[in-house]
Amino acid sequence: MTSPHAFSEAERSAVYRAIRERRDIRRFRPGHIPDDIVLRLLRAAAHAPSVGYMQPWNFLVIRDMEVRRNIHQAFLAANEEAQTMFPPERRDTYAALKLEGILDSGLNLCITCDRSRFGPVVLGRTCQPDMDLYSTVCAVQNLWLAARAEGVGVGWVSILRLEDLQRILGLPENVVPIAYLCVGYTDVFAAEPELKTSGWLPEIPLAEMIFYDRWGQSRKSLTVL
Amino acid sequence: MTSPHAFSEAERSAVYRAIRERRDIRRFRPGHIPDDIVLRLLRAAAHAPSVGYMQPWNFLVIRDMEVRRNIHQAFLAANEEAQTMFPPERRDTYAALKLEGILDSGLNLCITCDRSRFGPVVLGRTCQPDMDLYSTVCAVQNLWLAARAEGVGVGWVSILRLEDLQRILGLPENVVPIAYLCVGYTDVFAAEPELKTSGWLPEIPLAEMIFYDRWGQSRKSLTVL
Repeated sequence: MTSPHAFSEAERSAVYRAIRERRDIRRFRPGHIPDDIVLRLLRAAAHAPSVGYMQPWNFLVIRDMEVRRNIHQAFLAANEEAQTMFPPERRDTYAALKLEGILDSGLNLCITCDRSRFGPVVLGRTCQPDMDLYSTVCAVQNLWLAARAEGVGVGWVSILRLEDLQRILGLPENVVPIAYLCVGYTDVFAAEPELKTSGWLPEIPLAEMIFYDRWGQSRKSLTVL
Repeated sequence: MTSPHAFSEAERSAVYRAIRERRDIRRFRPGHIPDDIVLRLLRAAAHAPSVGYMQPWNFLVIRDMEVRRNIHQAFLAANEEAQTMFPPERRDTYAALKLEGILDSGLNLCITCDRSRFGPVVLGRTCQPDMDLYSTVCAVQNLWLAARAEGVGVGWVSILRLEDLQRILGLPENVVPIAYLCVGYTDVFAAEPELKTSGWLPEIPLAEMIFYDRWGQSRKSLTVL
């Protein structure tokens, strides 16, 4: 049985290609990203599902170098603290990783979530109050996949204190920064995630992550290669 | 300037088509979803970005009708409570909406986040502890887009108490349910979100959601149609 709504073989391959070849990019080369591309990426983000059609997102397109230098300073402070949290034997490896491209990417983009949009009661958010945050993450992933199709690199910088982002970007109290992204051209989309190839952590086989009907129940009927 | 890493025009269109035509599906028709399709969807999910390559997700494929009846009961209880939270004049509209396809979809899928995977310190999660939850949401969105390309409908049911999901599915304490999804064949992928066409909430123009460099700063250089 196949679905009459299925895309063509070529279209499906393209969707799976974007999913498979998307990477977290930290190395950028200079180059202005044209407004029409930025606009396509933002429109892709805004097509994300949102709980109760709440559309809680905003998009801060950040090209100003002073703002970016402030964010970079905040990253350096947060990263210095982060490094001390790892066991001594991992600290050198950690320090050698390039974890952001705040100053060298074409632009930065902060995607936020307005927790009060359309009032206090939102359909579908009545007993899972964080659904608005999750909706905003769906917007991030839409944008990330669209960017891969455009040949544009995206890197998510999470080594930033939320209060620093709030202060530097002037966010109102009800607005939470979800993703701080570096967006730009890059020389390489690596075949595999850098934290895998560098030996930081291993890939978990898919079969080990699938259960049936209840937590912990495995079976063999889905053949996972 | 174009990127040498950009997909072909046809491939880009396919990616944007999946993003644009994805819908939250609540009306299903019977039909077993073949294991090879389920496997492609789960593999797409597992290709999501994860903070520090933590891969915090698990996938519970739920076909058992007893489990689904228990989940459906939990939905009914949560939904009854939800309905009373809306202003009286919206309650009839709310009650008329079909919000889930737990019993009539081909299968249910619960995507969870193991908050303790690979130990307490995770690269990139040192000052934003919820990054593991967000990584798991990226996996949900990957799966949702892949499903659209396969012509398979996905609906996210968030009117469920997390403690009910924990209990019915037997989740360990460190494992958080992120998305409870109904997955199956459907007659219609509507052109627009149902909560928009039904008049529940209006679409927000993209231009109103974009700021430049700091919160609240608008300008006209990105032409948003």
